[in-house]
Amino acid sequence: MGLTVAQKIIKNHLVKGKMISGREIAIKIDQTLTQDSTGTMAYLQFEALGIDKVKTKKSVAYIDHNILQTGPENADDHLYIQTVAKKHGIYFSKPGNGICHQVHLERFGMPGETLLGSDSHTPTGGGIGMLAIGAGGLDVAVAMGGGEYYINMPKIVKVNLKGSLNPWVSAKDIILEVLRRLTVKGGVGKIFEYCGEGVKSLTVPERATITNMGAELGATTSVFPSDEVTYEFLKAQGREEDYKEIKADKDAVYDEEVEIDLNTLEPLAACPHSPDNVVKVSEVKGIKVNQIAIGSCTNSSYVDMMKVASILHGKTIKENVSLVISPGSKQVLTMLAKNGALAKLVAAGARILECACGPCIGMGQSPCTDAVSLRTFNRNFEGRSGTVSAKVYLVSPETAAVSALTGYLTDPREFEGKIEVSMPKEFLINDNLIVPPADKGEEIKIVRGPNIKPFPKAEALKDNIEGKILTKVGDNITTDHIMPSNAKLLPYRSNIPHLSNYCLTPCDKEFPKKAKEFNGGFILGGANYGQGSSREHAALVPLYLGVKAVLAKSFARIHKANLINNGIMPLVFENEKDYDDIDVMDDIIVDNSINQVKEGKVIVKNITKNKEYKMILDVTERQKNMILSGGLINLVCKSK
Amino acid sequence: MGLTVAQKIIKNHLVKGKMISGREIAIKIDQTLTQDSTGTMAYLQFEALGIDKVKTKKSVAYIDHNILQTGPENADDHLYIQTVAKKHGIYFSKPGNGICHQVHLERFGMPGETLLGSDSHTPTGGGIGMLAIGAGGLDVAVAMGGGEYYINMPKIVKVNLKGSLNPWVSAKDIILEVLRRLTVKGGVGKIFEYCGEGVKSLTVPERATITNMGAELGATTSVFPSDEVTYEFLKAQGREEDYKEIKADKDAVYDEEVEIDLNTLEPLAACPHSPDNVVKVSEVKGIKVNQIAIGSCTNSSYVDMMKVASILHGKTIKENVSLVISPGSKQVLTMLAKNGALAKLVAAGARILECACGPCIGMGQSPCTDAVSLRTFNRNFEGRSGTVSAKVYLVSPETAAVSALTGYLTDPREFEGKIEVSMPKEFLINDNLIVPPADKGEEIKIVRGPNIKPFPKAEALKDNIEGKILTKVGDNITTDHIMPSNAKLLPYRSNIPHLSNYCLTPCDKEFPKKAKEFNGGFILGGANYGQGSSREHAALVPLYLGVKAVLAKSFARIHKANLINNGIMPLVFENEKDYDDIDVMDDIIVDNSINQVKEGKVIVKNITKNKEYKMILDVTERQKNMILSGGLINLVCKSK
Repeated sequence: MGLTVAQKIIKNHLVKGKMISGREIAIKIDQTLTQDSTGTMAYLQFEALGIDKVKTKKSVAYIDHNILQTGPENADDHLYIQTVAKKHGIYFSKPGNGICHQVHLERFGMPGETLLGSDSHTPTGGGIGMLAIGAGGLDVAVAMGGGEYYINMPKIVKVNLKGSLNPWVSAKDIILEVLRRLTVKGGVGKIFEYCGEGVKSLTVPERATITNMGAELGATTSVFPSDEVTYEFLKAQGREEDYKEIKADKDAVYDEEVEIDLNTLEPLAACPHSPDNVVKVSEVKGIKVNQIAIGSCTNSSYVDMMKVASILHGKTIKENVSLVISPGSKQVLTMLAKNGALAKLVAAGARILECACGPCIGMGQSPCTDAVSLRTFNRNFEGRSGTVSAKVYLVSPETAAVSALTGYLTDPREFEGKIEVSMPKEFLINDNLIVPPADKGEEIKIVRGPNIKPFPKAEALKDNIEGKILTKVGDNITTDHIMPSNAKLLPYRSNIPHLSNYCLTPCDKEFPKKAKEFNGGFILGGANYGQGSSREHAALVPLYLGVKAVLAKSFARIHKANLINNGIMPLVFENEKDYDDIDVMDDIIVDNSINQVKEGKVIVKNITKNKEYKMILDVTERQKNMILSGGLINLVCKSK
Repeated sequence: MGLTVAQKIIKNHLVKGKMISGREIAIKIDQTLTQDSTGTMAYLQFEALGIDKVKTKKSVAYIDHNILQTGPENADDHLYIQTVAKKHGIYFSKPGNGICHQVHLERFGMPGETLLGSDSHTPTGGGIGMLAIGAGGLDVAVAMGGGEYYINMPKIVKVNLKGSLNPWVSAKDIILEVLRRLTVKGGVGKIFEYCGEGVKSLTVPERATITNMGAELGATTSVFPSDEVTYEFLKAQGREEDYKEIKADKDAVYDEEVEIDLNTLEPLAACPHSPDNVVKVSEVKGIKVNQIAIGSCTNSSYVDMMKVASILHGKTIKENVSLVISPGSKQVLTMLAKNGALAKLVAAGARILECACGPCIGMGQSPCTDAVSLRTFNRNFEGRSGTVSAKVYLVSPETAAVSALTGYLTDPREFEGKIEVSMPKEFLINDNLIVPPADKGEEIKIVRGPNIKPFPKAEALKDNIEGKILTKVGDNITTDHIMPSNAKLLPYRSNIPHLSNYCLTPCDKEFPKKAKEFNGGFILGGANYGQGSSREHAALVPLYLGVKAVLAKSFARIHKANLINNGIMPLVFENEKDYDDIDVMDDIIVDNSINQVKEGKVIVKNITKNKEYKMILDVTERQKNMILSGGLINLVCKSK
């Protein structure tokens, strides 16, 4: 039986398990990437593993998230990452060098290799034929240390691209169409593999737009074959030797199939407030626009920028519009500055931002109250722009640029004029903002500014656990409730003690105070506890506060894994009604916990109420070992 | 008797008073400028005057301070200013168009005219032969309404520039030398007028570097003659018709004289934490540098940028350095993007920031903890960078660029190579980010986001004033104590109710609460109350909180004027020891206050202590009228 591209890469990297969808497998990781908002913690965790030098083929640390620097915290983090990288064999991409996914594609991505990144848009690398997966910082730290990465074998979805795109319809519209059909939940546990005749008409950056935003499907990742187009891209990047053909076998078997006829696609827009709320631009055109933002890891490539420059050339943006453009990388920016395109953008009235994530993560350029903002980005969640009342539409660069000239959301097919932009035969290569690791790591001193605090480490499970119920929360508590993340708190991602003052405060203002007063204890949660963003801090901060277990009706998948990674037990009521019986400040005891964890069933005693509750610990054997050892780091250190 | 340049301009604009130094004069204002952090309040105040259209020859509203936009407040302010400008006959320079002083010089400055700006670096315009003065927003609002501007006639200081600059010594070094000699207090009540053979070798942007940073002397303003060099600049800007020769008469009489021999000048640096802490670079070279920032209204002209590009061309900044560059205007940025210089800057590793104030006002790019930061800016006060422990050195663009290559503070004369940069014969002119006012202002609707709150207006003085002593503070209270200004609070400059929650809190956490509870009252201050920054908010916020008078041992000059402008009495103890007698929560009464104010002597009764204190109200007749009317706005409205 033939294999798909994804199956071929997984097969080449399989360390444990069988490639049967839904079954746990472990794969070897060739490359890792981090960005700065997750990276500081990942490197603190890597340091805790006590390994001198990364064991991956290539690990790269990027600075692209926190570069506004409105206080010393960001620059302190940068310097910590720069020095820790140099010491431990990691390449460091300085601020100004660009967005991690764009730069990784240009300079490091390798067809056929595996990439684990501490950023949810790591699947961008699928555009170059990598198996590129987003994960928590701890998973990335373990991978840097040579550890395998565990996932359940995903289903493989064939996305068959028929025909070719009409003028003014672009790669962004393809992924918007996939989102329209499958929704933001449609990709969970799946890899989307693109094939069909349409593939060869898409350049690598266009493919990367699609795999990047595939993250919004909830997918494990997305991947394109590595073919002649990939070769041309790598060659233009001076990296032909990195090329390797990887195509699906003709008799490859897919779990599911989706077909998209490119010829019938029109310019699309994701309306507020979800990336899958997709309609034709022609159906919503005419909305007055306050802001247009072009860039982000989805649409900031050289060709994207050249298209925009070509549309804006010799014209002026409308009076009511603020147009901000963030080129994806120093390579892109230098080329635009050199060939005159940047002058065209500026002359038309664009504000040029740094090569970074910027407004996509709410780091600047929040629009005015009630604004309509068109963005070439990948997410338009309510409030993500920094302006709660803003209405953000996700569109292609073509739609964005044409709308900047009219001041209204405009179907780009109405633009009078043509644009012809082609891929360069040679990209401008200058890696002087990438600092290679030191030859002698032992000579490098890591600089830890006052914002870099040691992260909390769990202890091996004690046989007798006691504590109070510190808080009782309802259903559907998100990781945003557990560990709020906003422009004020984001600079403190490497400062768990500071963050701990905000833990669960949206639900219970007194939680941090109580946790500190009673030296930790238990959290009582409802159903779907820990849904939303995958941030590890929602487990690290409770760990710091001494939380020993969360008792809940049910858990969201990723948060549950993060709790286990950090040695906190996620216990589920066998009988949900027991939840009602428990009150804040009840005294709780778990006796004989080591044996109970091994069995996967745990009796929780409520001393105050003189009752017992049967709880389930639904985890794999490996996860049981993590809980017994006090988290993944302890487990890895123990097994060294 | 002959006249100096400054005297000629003043004479042409004199409305009241005699040109005798120290005597109050009133001058007519031709042009005004505002920036966004002071502008919102200035336009709210202008609106309160009830005038349809500005009565100046030209008024321009710039957006250059608050453009990080980490929440909707900044963009709301921008939109308010954009619409209020369009309605009332004011030109609006959109965000992205550049720093107010740079753009004003390029596109609007007129030799021989008067310019009043709500920014302390307004004297930049002196580089083109204007009399350009920084003032509070209310003064600018009144000037837009056609009102004269009152100052005491300054002394005129002749700065005689002998000889010419050696290679690698620049205009920045000239003003640093002036600061070294005269200190930050040396210019109070003075106008610095540059003349001598050295003048003709300085381009308009170089002259503007000098007049800009003349603000650090505490000077009223600085001015250069308008000569052939001025003509060439205006011609290159397509504005020869704006040229007018203005030179000092040969027999002009100056109050003081300073002589600087340009031939002996070396590259200089202002060391932490004061612009007058000036030493030769050669004396401090070798300090390891973390950050280099090039730009700001002092050094962001085309020629400044071209020099930097020429130094960095084909090279790479040092690994330990973060180099950020903010070109001064869209004109400068477009020209650099067009001629390839920007590509050289980016290729060398520079991070390009927006054309705005940026790091100079702590709006981004705060360096790491304990950093050494070299900046081409005008101020290096402790903490201004956003990093309290940072050590900021003020240097020329040449010193900054050469140091970026070495990673150490370096004397630029050590650079191996030459740079030759000349002024362009024609600047690239494209004013498409400047929105002209509407023909029919009445049709324009002003957009007020939720962050734009009405500002407080004082009432005419009541004959009987009662209230409690709300707080008692010590000597040397600054306007930073009275109204803190930081990155968190700066977006709320148009929201006095929000700011009021922070009034005087660095001295007395409970002050805002007490003021609200007791419906206002009195502040008891020590000596030199209200020193520091000129911000009007230190008067507006107490006014909002119902403060009726400040009783103090003495007042700082500008804050005293701001109190009076807002109808708050600044009362000085005839007997300083009375201060000791008064306690917080004492009940205070001023009877028959209207007559007492007219007499300039006020008896304050302390009901609680059953005592009376003699206080002095040391103000001009005009100021008495302001207090009686309830501030300048009421006075202007009454006299219409």
